[in-house]
Amino acid sequence: MFRYVQPVLFKHCDPAGIVFYPRYFEMINDCMEQFFDERLKWPFHEIHASAAVPTVEITTRFKAPSRHGDKLDLALGISKVGRTSCGFALEARCAGQERFASDLTLVHVNKDGKPSQWPDTIKARLQQLKECQEQ
Amino acid sequence: MFRYVQPVLFKHCDPAGIVFYPRYFEMINDCMEQFFDERLKWPFHEIHASAAVPTVEITTRFKAPSRHGDKLDLALGISKVGRTSCGFALEARCAGQERFASDLTLVHVNKDGKPSQWPDTIKARLQQLKECQEQ
Amino acid sequence: MFRYVQPVLFKHCDPAGIVFYPRYFEMINDCMEQFFDERLKWPFHEIHASAAVPTVEITTRFKAPSRHGDKLDLALGISKVGRTSCGFALEARCAGQERFASDLTLVHVNKDGKPSQWPDTIKARLQQLKECQEQ
Amino acid sequence: MFRYVQPVLFKHCDPAGIVFYPRYFEMINDCMEQFFDERLKWPFHEIHASAAVPTVEITTRFKAPSRHGDKLDLALGISKVGRTSCGFALEARCAGQERFASDLTLVHVNKDGKPSQWPDTIKARLQQLKECQEQ
Repeated sequence: MFRYVQPVLFKHCDPAGIVFYPRYFEMINDCMEQFFDERLKWPFHEIHASAAVPTVEITTRFKAPSRHGDKLDLALGISKVGRTSCGFALEARCAGQERFASDLTLVHVNKDGKPSQWPDTIKARLQQLKECQEQ
Repeated sequence: MFRYVQPVLFKHCDPAGIVFYPRYFEMINDCMEQFFDERLKWPFHEIHASAAVPTVEITTRFKAPSRHGDKLDLALGISKVGRTSCGFALEARCAGQERFASDLTLVHVNKDGKPSQWPDTIKARLQQLKECQEQ
Repeated sequence: MFRYVQPVLFKHCDPAGIVFYPRYFEMINDCMEQFFDERLKWPFHEIHASAAVPTVEITTRFKAPSRHGDKLDLALGISKVGRTSCGFALEARCAGQERFASDLTLVHVNKDGKPSQWPDTIKARLQQLKECQEQ
Repeated sequence: MFRYVQPVLFKHCDPAGIVFYPRYFEMINDCMEQFFDERLKWPFHEIHASAAVPTVEITTRFKAPSRHGDKLDLALGISKVGRTSCGFALEARCAGQERFASDLTLVHVNKDGKPSQWPDTIKARLQQLKECQEQ
């Protein structure tokens, strides 16, 4: 599991005093960017020189609202490693309470936006990380 | 169906020149806000005086990228009217091509965040709109 | 003067129920994008194929808060047309009350980010628009 | 001086590959929120229970563009402590190069949005921090 701490800041919150849900997707993207950087050693700004890793599907269930000042603990796991894609499961909690959970799929595409197989080292690393989390 | 036109602006796009996906959720929220305003005559800023209509689940499939300058045509339909919730299906197209599709559920909650049944006039209006779109 | 109507939406507002000020800068940018599109017939997505028009300086005074549901009326005027730059003055009002005012300078730069003189037709158009607003 | 490190993330960048300038104002607000939290021990979410500290004026000069992957080093200083307001000067650098600089004024207001004098302990702390940075 990859852990990412995200404090709920003023900018994230709406007039109801809770996180405006599109801001959660920015948090998810920031978490993913950090994961690629730290765990795959393949930072987004290097990827984007010649390719991209767009999100092609995402399902999110919002279980409980988050408030300004909360500290969210995001846990990102790998659910499925494909030839050109990768499935992830993410869970966000605060003080033990589940706040939201996402299942998402990213696809590796080339400059023309066509699905392209993962570089061998990246695919191997994704599989290794998936196996580690299962033990 | 409720139609909402959303031009893809500079602010929506990322270094790959396409819409940054969390921005799509802002568009979806703007479309929903307009729907409540125009079709339900129940604007968000009135709702939030005593209640809220948070999104509790949303699934989105991104079919093709959208670029700066595109004009997106969002079509929002009602899939299910519940006692305290409502399901919606949204499809975004540009020049006939599908760009993304979302299924989402909103819940009407009171000031304490507890699910609360729709006001009668709103529920009747949601059901009426749902029936109209089926004909 | 170029007029741009901007309703204050849910996404713009913070836990204090008023517009989160960085959102004002998105509105300013949207207004400018619309101005380039409608008045200069030079849409941002065409400009960015070979150049850019970054904001190099902006001063903003927030006079009164704006609330969810307000309709802001932005008035954009040209204050100074330079060789590579252009100064603008923007004022946002709601129901007659001033909400914020900005003075900003944009510079036309080439692909390498170096200041580059305005295309002749654009400079002529900027000067013409400036003269018209003075009459 | 209060230091705040802000990596330039994917979400901050526009189709030109550089930071979209409204995002800088989110960074400035995040930096200010952290300053109130760490240096004044007066977190934004506590302030907003009974008051607010809106930005009433901000001038920003963008000196050089920032790119995805850059690490910005923000330095926030206090320029003037008033009865109800406080002036700040902020400078953002990356690898020694200045990227942008802001002068901004915040005002302490009560629930009705009226300027209200700083709590004594906060004013004393602001003055102390201002003196320390001058030595």
